[in-house]
Amino acid sequence: MKVIHVGLIGWGTVGSGVVRILRENGPLIEKRLGSKIVLKRIADIDLETERSVKVNREVLTNRAEEVIGDPEIDIVLELIGGMEPARSYIIEALKGGKHVVTANKALLATHLDELCRVAHRYNVDLNFEAAVGGGIPIIRALKEGFVAERIEAIFGILNGTSNYILSTMSNEGGEFAAVLRQAQAQGYAEKDPSFDIEGIDAAHKLAILIKLAFGAKIPFEDIFIEGISDITPLDIQFAQEFGYTIKLLAIAKADGETIEARVHSTMLPSNHLLSTVGGVFNAIFLRGNAVGETLFYGQGAGMMATASAVTSDLIELSRNVLKGTVGRVPTLSLQQTHIMEMKVKDIEDIVRPYYMRFSALDRPGVLSKISGVLGKNDIGIASVIQKGRQVAGAVPVVIMTHEARERNIHRAFKEIDKMDVILDKTMLIRVEGELS
Amino acid sequence: MKVIHVGLIGWGTVGSGVVRILRENGPLIEKRLGSKIVLKRIADIDLETERSVKVNREVLTNRAEEVIGDPEIDIVLELIGGMEPARSYIIEALKGGKHVVTANKALLATHLDELCRVAHRYNVDLNFEAAVGGGIPIIRALKEGFVAERIEAIFGILNGTSNYILSTMSNEGGEFAAVLRQAQAQGYAEKDPSFDIEGIDAAHKLAILIKLAFGAKIPFEDIFIEGISDITPLDIQFAQEFGYTIKLLAIAKADGETIEARVHSTMLPSNHLLSTVGGVFNAIFLRGNAVGETLFYGQGAGMMATASAVTSDLIELSRNVLKGTVGRVPTLSLQQTHIMEMKVKDIEDIVRPYYMRFSALDRPGVLSKISGVLGKNDIGIASVIQKGRQVAGAVPVVIMTHEARERNIHRAFKEIDKMDVILDKTMLIRVEGELS
Repeated sequence: MKVIHVGLIGWGTVGSGVVRILRENGPLIEKRLGSKIVLKRIADIDLETERSVKVNREVLTNRAEEVIGDPEIDIVLELIGGMEPARSYIIEALKGGKHVVTANKALLATHLDELCRVAHRYNVDLNFEAAVGGGIPIIRALKEGFVAERIEAIFGILNGTSNYILSTMSNEGGEFAAVLRQAQAQGYAEKDPSFDIEGIDAAHKLAILIKLAFGAKIPFEDIFIEGISDITPLDIQFAQEFGYTIKLLAIAKADGETIEARVHSTMLPSNHLLSTVGGVFNAIFLRGNAVGETLFYGQGAGMMATASAVTSDLIELSRNVLKGTVGRVPTLSLQQTHIMEMKVKDIEDIVRPYYMRFSALDRPGVLSKISGVLGKNDIGIASVIQKGRQVAGAVPVVIMTHEARERNIHRAFKEIDKMDVILDKTMLIRVEGELS
Repeated sequence: MKVIHVGLIGWGTVGSGVVRILRENGPLIEKRLGSKIVLKRIADIDLETERSVKVNREVLTNRAEEVIGDPEIDIVLELIGGMEPARSYIIEALKGGKHVVTANKALLATHLDELCRVAHRYNVDLNFEAAVGGGIPIIRALKEGFVAERIEAIFGILNGTSNYILSTMSNEGGEFAAVLRQAQAQGYAEKDPSFDIEGIDAAHKLAILIKLAFGAKIPFEDIFIEGISDITPLDIQFAQEFGYTIKLLAIAKADGETIEARVHSTMLPSNHLLSTVGGVFNAIFLRGNAVGETLFYGQGAGMMATASAVTSDLIELSRNVLKGTVGRVPTLSLQQTHIMEMKVKDIEDIVRPYYMRFSALDRPGVLSKISGVLGKNDIGIASVIQKGRQVAGAVPVVIMTHEARERNIHRAFKEIDKMDVILDKTMLIRVEGELS
């Protein structure tokens, strides 16, 4: 029986996790695969730093070319992350006839089409289950489990750091900045957290999901991205009073003509399953035209969960190698020729219910002025909370609207924020009600 | 490009769903598969009853043999359910070199090994995603997404009817019998509901999951099965007071030596994700040694969700046919030769925290008598509720225990239930705390 030879580029946290899984679960994996997986070569520029797993020194090299150029290696794992040299390594490996597994979401968010074309031309497979949702097999679900579905909508909690911060603010209170510092101290947030808290990481993952779910080629820059740093304890408290929970959601919807693609703080009914996803966990809620509503939940990051997804890809490709088959499941779910450019709906054109928090002077007639402008702009009010709570001289006036067009909201805010009774920029949070 | 020819045996609800999906999502499926799926023949003993989808009369036949014997047909869908003639049809189709998709959980729970052996011998594939969790791709997750995992535990809400009944009792109140009648009126429970409410359906699905997760051959009769009909509003109320929710769970755990395999009403912390699964929905909570905790949620039954899973299998097998590959993913996750007989742990040997509700006379010293017997049997008390509520002359005394061995519980109950201060059989509900 043929043995599968694997080369690993990037001996970091996830790479060490793969080594550990192949070692600890190796005998079990062999019983499933019916063959042995041998990690033949590991390349990393740093071979000195102590790792959590030991490997034979002779498999180590600091030259990625020794992995890519090894004729015996069937499958290459790219786990260094970032744009270059990751992109070039992957392309070289594909051109060399090697199947590739990568977890590199930032690269895939912008270069997936290019990598797919190369894989297609050189008749090799490219897998990336670990790039979205860590250990959650959502890529596979989109390409196989839900292959018979017309996907209508995806709602994802795709960034563990921001979910940890929002969950902690909701459950224990605290200002954003303080909770962020706490998350950093506990290792749940990076020193420079902007990537996570500004929604960029979630948008990278959303870009990948959109491609698989809708077969749509959209420019990454067209995804609307807003982070969580402006969420205040006040908003969380009001959300709870209205029966909502605030989550950073990655949202994609398709109506057949355009795609909604946006990442922002979202108010969800507190009894919705996504609202109960706490801590650093990820979850993807998906609606298909036949299967209805489904949810996948699990660890979105972390050494072992991510390594599990990488290894599942490795085993899938090993099965292809053993059976001598390639391109069995198209890389982007749709056959390459059917991937279409699609237009992303302008954020101004979306229609949602909205949460608005105005910082107003505590004076008679304020609510009437605000609601007057809203009414003029076709924005219906569903409920209002105006309490005497004073925050730095201002009184919060909170309004939940019926469905309204965002363009109208912005037009109304332009007028309202100029009023002399309005002391601060108005807070706006989109609501996903029944997740329709 | 080769066209895939499919034959359907059983033109019922799910069969009609498959016809509808192939029609409505056909163009999309073709873009994914890169080929056309043609439903060439449909067999059913009843061709007269009005169906929700129309088909050409010429594809219809009332002889399954005309599907199985058609040399052009690549893949057969068995959707008649039940033991015979479903079993014989599947075996005949496999022997005829046809790949088979089935959703027949009752048959698979008891005959999966036999069917696998036949498929293996005749070098064809057998898929059954729809047999567990309806539209939730849990079979595929076990065989592919979590292929690198040593699965440690599975906790499933696998029966929609009983989950609907327990959810309704929890949210709206009501006695079991009344809520069952309501469920029957709404079409959520069968006329004869025993299969669902007694846990048998959930056990069938658990038997299949155990095979895939642990590679274990266990006799179906060894699964411990208890239904939900003895759950009272009183138990639900006490559960809520303790911060728990009662769910019918299908539980499997592996410790390397034995398998725990049991279906019964279970008390779960109310903030656990599984506790929030309401109505007829299903969910599977799974723990692997690398990926940690994951959850899959979706519709566990219903025409379109089940048909979606059947069609995903059909497409998977079509991909194999198009690539000329077979046996790429072993039917039981492990290669046939590694499936091992394993022992199911006697229910008397399991160790859990327990909820006990005693129906006692409202007399001094009762609690002391009960707790004395528990202590003698090595059962530690975690908390007690004893209120003056009188139910038919009896006072409920409720005890939550620390972890205890079930054998000791039964021994204690034998003594306690004989006391003249005890008026009724004691209610026992197992607790799955941190789901360890």
